[in-house]
Amino acid sequence: MKSYRVGILGATGAVGREMMKVLAERDFPLSELRLLASARSAGKKLNFKDQELTIREAADDAFEGLDIVLGAAENDIAKRFAPAIKAAGAVFVDNSSAFRLDPDVPLVVPEINPEDVKNHHGLIANPNCTTIVSLVAINGLRKASPIESIVASSYQAVSGAGAAGPVELDQQMHALCEGGKVETKTFPYQIACNVIPQIGGAAFEGYTSEEMKLQNEGRKIMHLPEMKVSCTCVRVPVMRSHSVSLLVRTKKKITVEQARELIAAAPGCKLVDDLANKIYPMPLDTSDQDLVFVGRIRPDLIDEKGLNIWCCGDQVRKGAATNAVQIAELVTQL
Amino acid sequence: MKSYRVGILGATGAVGREMMKVLAERDFPLSELRLLASARSAGKKLNFKDQELTIREAADDAFEGLDIVLGAAENDIAKRFAPAIKAAGAVFVDNSSAFRLDPDVPLVVPEINPEDVKNHHGLIANPNCTTIVSLVAINGLRKASPIESIVASSYQAVSGAGAAGPVELDQQMHALCEGGKVETKTFPYQIACNVIPQIGGAAFEGYTSEEMKLQNEGRKIMHLPEMKVSCTCVRVPVMRSHSVSLLVRTKKKITVEQARELIAAAPGCKLVDDLANKIYPMPLDTSDQDLVFVGRIRPDLIDEKGLNIWCCGDQVRKGAATNAVQIAELVTQL
Repeated sequence: MKSYRVGILGATGAVGREMMKVLAERDFPLSELRLLASARSAGKKLNFKDQELTIREAADDAFEGLDIVLGAAENDIAKRFAPAIKAAGAVFVDNSSAFRLDPDVPLVVPEINPEDVKNHHGLIANPNCTTIVSLVAINGLRKASPIESIVASSYQAVSGAGAAGPVELDQQMHALCEGGKVETKTFPYQIACNVIPQIGGAAFEGYTSEEMKLQNEGRKIMHLPEMKVSCTCVRVPVMRSHSVSLLVRTKKKITVEQARELIAAAPGCKLVDDLANKIYPMPLDTSDQDLVFVGRIRPDLIDEKGLNIWCCGDQVRKGAATNAVQIAELVTQL
Repeated sequence: MKSYRVGILGATGAVGREMMKVLAERDFPLSELRLLASARSAGKKLNFKDQELTIREAADDAFEGLDIVLGAAENDIAKRFAPAIKAAGAVFVDNSSAFRLDPDVPLVVPEINPEDVKNHHGLIANPNCTTIVSLVAINGLRKASPIESIVASSYQAVSGAGAAGPVELDQQMHALCEGGKVETKTFPYQIACNVIPQIGGAAFEGYTSEEMKLQNEGRKIMHLPEMKVSCTCVRVPVMRSHSVSLLVRTKKKITVEQARELIAAAPGCKLVDDLANKIYPMPLDTSDQDLVFVGRIRPDLIDEKGLNIWCCGDQVRKGAATNAVQIAELVTQL
């Protein structure tokens, strides 16, 4: 079996570390794992399987010899190194939002549009976390009808803000419990015992950048250029795993029973839907695993072609690291 | 000025205690305040203004001489004592859901349908907390157009489960911070660092009782028998104040600018809407006061006659105690 030389750009962040974990768990065929980060982290060591790997500084000459680079860094870093990664001949699977809407760059959720990987020119983008969780949840419905619109309200975990997010929530909880001062740094306001209805900056008609992703990225991933999405993104004091309340309207009516069957059969999903027995997806239950849990499936009471759906998925894993490693697996099969 | 003899049925609960606070703050014209609770609490004392009041056991003969009884008890208690309150000649302003949909019982939000108080036959119902917060937020829009439908996803505080809710969240936060065992009693699952997509029992087509209230009570309060609502109710680890993400569709198009003006001018609302400066309603900011904060007003990206709106309001106050005392004030003006 062929094996690959893989780099992680931004290896010390929450997503980078999770990528290492997922590569190990899935036994990705590696002949080298190269950890790249800022000068600040260079020289530090991280464990991978039974090895100790030394972090190298990300620089233009750091990608030579690599087959695949998994990007776990911010937009500016991704843009800064994309040319060097291309020059080194590696395929860049990038988790930032820098290239997601570029028509030359496939945007892939392996359960939904794996075939798009074929069209890459050295760069494949990993979608937004809330977008991945929401689309995996409803993808099965497309076997019965195209999706026309989605109304979404999210309940996003602090992990979405990177490694500093859970640290800040934990510190604030300690401050509240111990009578200390609540300090804010990563989030603009106290997040413990609060919810903050802003993720990302102002982008379009009063929507934030995060709120526009489900429409913009969803259209591209699902090949549904007309799909319309009204989205509200809200940060909640949950450590990990995003939840989303979705109202999905389809071209043809799908019954609740049909929807349950389609979702139960869809890859990447787990149907968790038995209200009478208090069984439904919750972020605590979906953390640290790869499936998107889907439940609370009900008929829309406004439009007979609508369904209300509740889903939860681990933002760091399926929403980021696992999806990227799955894309890398598709690359190895080209 | 005339003064009134007022009773509180369920005076020891979270809403009952808040009713005392609100009666004092608003200087309600009282000649007597009679605190009624279960036998377990009878004989205990609670402070009201500069007096110490002794709690009496709620019994059929406990309402004699009262003009108004504020109900802050569960449905079964409200039903149990409604005949005795009527027999005593008092007006029963009940916060339970027992009588809300009874066609002989007005269901009143004083900012929206104060005139309905006139039709009472001794009983006036106080609506559901999430319903009050949501309807006060959007009521101003009705000056421009009737409301046709609402898609709502709630972020409901633990205070909605009564006094035991905040105690449980606090205990669970302590357990998480101190490494203790997280115990659940009031909520079916851990609520600290989690969200629970169930409030109320299974009621209709997979919706919970709580989720049906915004449609059923909303139609009655707004005199819009055709209004359709798709609602998802979710408990979040917030102490107090409910938040709701609303997509409101109207018969005629309302622009964002119009909506801002209408909401800013609507009674009971505060417009808090400046995303660029990170200004929007948050539950921490709305706790312990009576206004519903409204912001994040955006055009629906699906239907041009829709608006996305985010609102927060104190569940114990405007969502329960304050609204009931406002109804009692209307009763004194009949």
